[in-house]
Amino acid sequence: MIIVGELINTSRKPILESVARRDAEYIASIARRQAEAGASYLDVNCSSILDKEAEVMAWLVENIQKAVDIPLCIDTPNPAAMAAGISLARKGRPLANSITGEKDRFAAMLPLLLQYHARVTGLCTDDQGIPETAADRLRVARDLVHRLTDAGIDIDDIYLDPVLTSLSTNNTAGVEVLTAIRLIKEEFPKVHLICGLSNVSYGLPSRKVLNQAFMIQTMAAGMDAYILDPLDRTMMGFLYASQALLGQDQYCRNYLSAYRRGLYNEEQRQQK
Amino acid sequence: MIIVGELINTSRKPILESVARRDAEYIASIARRQAEAGASYLDVNCSSILDKEAEVMAWLVENIQKAVDIPLCIDTPNPAAMAAGISLARKGRPLANSITGEKDRFAAMLPLLLQYHARVTGLCTDDQGIPETAADRLRVARDLVHRLTDAGIDIDDIYLDPVLTSLSTNNTAGVEVLTAIRLIKEEFPKVHLICGLSNVSYGLPSRKVLNQAFMIQTMAAGMDAYILDPLDRTMMGFLYASQALLGQDQYCRNYLSAYRRGLYNEEQRQQK
Repeated sequence: MIIVGELINTSRKPILESVARRDAEYIASIARRQAEAGASYLDVNCSSILDKEAEVMAWLVENIQKAVDIPLCIDTPNPAAMAAGISLARKGRPLANSITGEKDRFAAMLPLLLQYHARVTGLCTDDQGIPETAADRLRVARDLVHRLTDAGIDIDDIYLDPVLTSLSTNNTAGVEVLTAIRLIKEEFPKVHLICGLSNVSYGLPSRKVLNQAFMIQTMAAGMDAYILDPLDRTMMGFLYASQALLGQDQYCRNYLSAYRRGLYNEEQRQQK
Repeated sequence: MIIVGELINTSRKPILESVARRDAEYIASIARRQAEAGASYLDVNCSSILDKEAEVMAWLVENIQKAVDIPLCIDTPNPAAMAAGISLARKGRPLANSITGEKDRFAAMLPLLLQYHARVTGLCTDDQGIPETAADRLRVARDLVHRLTDAGIDIDDIYLDPVLTSLSTNNTAGVEVLTAIRLIKEEFPKVHLICGLSNVSYGLPSRKVLNQAFMIQTMAAGMDAYILDPLDRTMMGFLYASQALLGQDQYCRNYLSAYRRGLYNEEQRQQK
């Protein structure tokens, strides 16, 4: 399972403030904690800083790489900020987050992927917006995969995001994504599937319970990468439990290791 | 979703003790609490009382039915105890738990199902034991469904139990069951699928986390009935969350009702 640690994002107040005072040590500590908790990549997102996004991206990337050795996920819709981040990323191959099926964004991002030999997250949206049904998601996914591989990107460097929408506005929002995952995996077994979970629960109470359940459901459907908070012990505990149940954890090694690290302590207390 | 409340079982010490002193009021209170918490059936199991099982079954069934109006799940491998319970069950149609593909057990149970027009749980085991792979489970399931429907049982009165085994002895125990559910539902869309969850986590620590995750995974695969403790608020909370995500809860009505009843309070406290 591929975990992209989501905490370095200027939409989060402590990150925004640490960026404002150029507090490299705080950023480094958040980077280290996520890496220690099992992140495979660290997401870097400063798109809330509109005017200086590229400059801040470069500063973040440089400082994170002084702290940890895992690769980065450069997260921006802005080609200039993408170029600033991806050109400096040197710890393994970066993940560019993201390209979409939109004509202009695709054209602006593609040369950067090729120049820096990056992996890429492809959002299943295009100039018609966010698809509603599983079949529409498959159509956009198919188009993205063909355009990316035609341009020379390896299929297993593509991480498709089926784009989650909220259950609160559409009752079939969850099940359409689950079906889309199965359809995409059936047609493109080598492609990866990635998502952040929080959109599915937007506007509903007890969002974490919905996010946890949707992670477990999407894992069973074939999703293999998540953008999440690796310091969330309950979420990570469910991730290891789910992997074991899916036969992806020989001798339940990762599950037992999570248990020994105390990831299930709170659940056990609560369930006494 | 069909919930069979599992608490009235003499393998549980408080139930065994209340049966020993013929404490009808205690049994009634456990019955009422499970019904109020959303149980569709109440399981009645006194198979640990080997010598007087039929007599105790009759006593339990009579007293539970004085307390609640939901149907019972008569849970015993013993045809005499099954007859004692099923013949007295008068609150809706009972669920006979269980028949198997084993020749003798099948022959002994079938006449009771027909005589009392009962629904039936069919364990996917036969004279060769518990199947290991999904394909073997499908084979036993197919044989059971054909024999039961040939005998005149309606297909939607059949609740197949794919038979969970522990992840601790076989890493693919979970995924084989998930695949079996999909294969059985594909071949017999009208058949129900039922299970108790605890076997999957036997021998591992933090069992509840594994049981919760496996409920969520099996629901997504098509299981529609569970034998569980309806007083377990965390489990029931995940059940409602999972239903909403699967598009089985219009306007998230059941999920929001669960939230208002406080089912997510502990999770929220813990996740602050």
